[in-house]
Amino acid sequence: MDISIIVIGDELLIGQVTDTNSGWIARHVNPLGWNVKSVKVIGDNEAEIIKAIEDSFAQTDLVITTGGLGPTKDDITKEAMRKYFGGEMVYDKEVEKNVLRVVELRHLKINDLTAAQAYVPSSCKVIQNKVGTAPIMWFERGSKVLVAMPGVPFETEQMMENEVIPRLLNHFCANEHIEHRTFIVIDHSESALAIKLEQFENNIPPHIHLAYLPRPGLVRLRLTGRLTDKTQLCNDLDVLSKQLHDILGSSIISYEDKCVAAILGDLLRSKQMTVATAESCTGGNIAHEITEVAGSSDYFVGSIVSYSNSVKQNLLGVPSEILEKEGAVSQPVVIQMCHGVAKLLGTACSISTSGIAGPGGGSLEKPVGTVWICAKCNDKIVSERYHFPGTRDRVIDRATMTGMLMLIKLLKNE
Amino acid sequence: MDISIIVIGDELLIGQVTDTNSGWIARHVNPLGWNVKSVKVIGDNEAEIIKAIEDSFAQTDLVITTGGLGPTKDDITKEAMRKYFGGEMVYDKEVEKNVLRVVELRHLKINDLTAAQAYVPSSCKVIQNKVGTAPIMWFERGSKVLVAMPGVPFETEQMMENEVIPRLLNHFCANEHIEHRTFIVIDHSESALAIKLEQFENNIPPHIHLAYLPRPGLVRLRLTGRLTDKTQLCNDLDVLSKQLHDILGSSIISYEDKCVAAILGDLLRSKQMTVATAESCTGGNIAHEITEVAGSSDYFVGSIVSYSNSVKQNLLGVPSEILEKEGAVSQPVVIQMCHGVAKLLGTACSISTSGIAGPGGGSLEKPVGTVWICAKCNDKIVSERYHFPGTRDRVIDRATMTGMLMLIKLLKNE
Repeated sequence: MDISIIVIGDELLIGQVTDTNSGWIARHVNPLGWNVKSVKVIGDNEAEIIKAIEDSFAQTDLVITTGGLGPTKDDITKEAMRKYFGGEMVYDKEVEKNVLRVVELRHLKINDLTAAQAYVPSSCKVIQNKVGTAPIMWFERGSKVLVAMPGVPFETEQMMENEVIPRLLNHFCANEHIEHRTFIVIDHSESALAIKLEQFENNIPPHIHLAYLPRPGLVRLRLTGRLTDKTQLCNDLDVLSKQLHDILGSSIISYEDKCVAAILGDLLRSKQMTVATAESCTGGNIAHEITEVAGSSDYFVGSIVSYSNSVKQNLLGVPSEILEKEGAVSQPVVIQMCHGVAKLLGTACSISTSGIAGPGGGSLEKPVGTVWICAKCNDKIVSERYHFPGTRDRVIDRATMTGMLMLIKLLKNE
Repeated sequence: MDISIIVIGDELLIGQVTDTNSGWIARHVNPLGWNVKSVKVIGDNEAEIIKAIEDSFAQTDLVITTGGLGPTKDDITKEAMRKYFGGEMVYDKEVEKNVLRVVELRHLKINDLTAAQAYVPSSCKVIQNKVGTAPIMWFERGSKVLVAMPGVPFETEQMMENEVIPRLLNHFCANEHIEHRTFIVIDHSESALAIKLEQFENNIPPHIHLAYLPRPGLVRLRLTGRLTDKTQLCNDLDVLSKQLHDILGSSIISYEDKCVAAILGDLLRSKQMTVATAESCTGGNIAHEITEVAGSSDYFVGSIVSYSNSVKQNLLGVPSEILEKEGAVSQPVVIQMCHGVAKLLGTACSISTSGIAGPGGGSLEKPVGTVWICAKCNDKIVSERYHFPGTRDRVIDRATMTGMLMLIKLLKNE
């Protein structure tokens, strides 16, 4: 089944907020064999909301809207839906009860605006929002369904997963399966990979599609298949996966769609090793990425963010002569940082960074984007100078990713 | 002028990639008095691309597309544009030269796929992509313009700013000004704020609009005005800003649309103070947020990410008896972490966190989401127990934000 998503909110069209709801919904309906056909982002405007609903229903049987349901004056979605689906605004006692419960849970006080959430069009079935005050509305017109979700990502995610998707499964019936296989590939640019896989690609059956999703330092390859016969589909994908494995070998660092920090975590856990980081230009971002993974306390001990030279000297044991002679952004400094943090925190593995993230601080010899990175695994140690293009946050992200990939390579050869 | 944006790529519709280009474009055309009318996300499908162009041209004079221009087989945007705008594919020597330059700069080798980037429809004017291999294409049909940008955010951002926006300004002429004023407000929920501002809102002139943009721990208020007379518009906005200031006072922590880390940085710099963090459950994310701000080395010294108890004891001086008796997630531990890191790194200010980010590790007494946070500014110290709802990354984000806001409040009263 195809789905249209309508994302509502002025704040999205001026770029103050980024829509993550449509991606979340897509990722969670795909395994059901459903397919997001298009996503449309529009402002808080009654006529545009109604037009978007009309256009979407012309294209798909299911429309999901997110946003525009808050209690403040700039939200007019509810009224637009009432106009489109008919009926009148009615006060729903069950919604009121739910609003009171949520407000109390948040240690807030009820007020007129929060209470106004209890008004809903009589043409909808209400699904109580267990994690927020805006009621979820289910509308039907003939064979078509529209579900209006809140804009707050946490609320949409919780309620889609626990309440809306089960109801949609009951209402519609999936007859086509969609399956994905994702491969995280390093050591290749997107086009070098495409050339290596040309023959492989030419032999892919028509119900399976290969996509290249390049990321800094890696390419995600994704096989997507669609077929009514799920067993056959899985079998076809398994055959192709085996072929990819034979062609790319150790350049595939994961056969699952996992973030690099999770791949690193799996390796550390399987080898029963621990890791620490000593971060200058990445400012704690490697530690942050590692600890975003649930269960990372099994292998992550801690980090020293040594932004100032005094921290590099006093805690990580970088000699002041080296800092003076070579500068903080240099090979001997980053190597000592790596040794220093492993010794201080008692870990087998460590990653260290020192660089110029910009926009200031660059020189002819060491321009903005210059980063020394070091990774250590037991007595093996590698260090490398990189030059990452782009803005401050991009340099930080690239250095973070590269540091983790360097340690992954060391661990794979351990 | 109104703009339609078409975002192209299967990877967006299955949620593997999040579109940030449309938001970036919106933020950068708004100050020119231009307005993003809608954003449409579609797959790599020729018929859908052509239909989206038709629909968009029916609505606006300017259409910007992003994505679908890479060298691999799943990109068919270029052919769709050729079909829509006419002409044939021609080999462009200037594009070839640019591709060679960029490939060399990246220390990569040219290959057949990268070279294929040099084929462009004869119906377009090419804008050379200074930071990537995919050429930017400028098409015209009557009074209407379509600009096809690459999908890589870095390339789109650099090329929009330096090449495309200046050309668009030359081509179209803006006659209406759009101005924004943003206020970062704490201490109020969205609806409490709306009630406090009811009278203020009723007196806003019709060419100015007020929007509420709630974020964890704060609400961003945004006044948006549109008028041909720029001086009058700015004057009107200044009057309203003064009124908001009188109503909300110190609850406004910034009169610019800045992230909390930048607001904290401004305060530290103006008071010539330094800060360090001691992070357990936030795992380095506070340090990361602080150091994402350019120039943060002026006031940020470093951080101890003390994920394991041994780091809390050995580096931050948390007595083992307290860890045993109270547990790591407790008030005395978080207070000692805050004192310990300020002493170790020699700073006036510090922030510390210790909590259970989940999904595991919770108990009846300390459920998942329980976080102790402490902030210190000279001899003033505050500590508080919070319970944040939601997933692991949400708990980390909320704790990060709350820690920075606690220190901002201390600094404001310094």
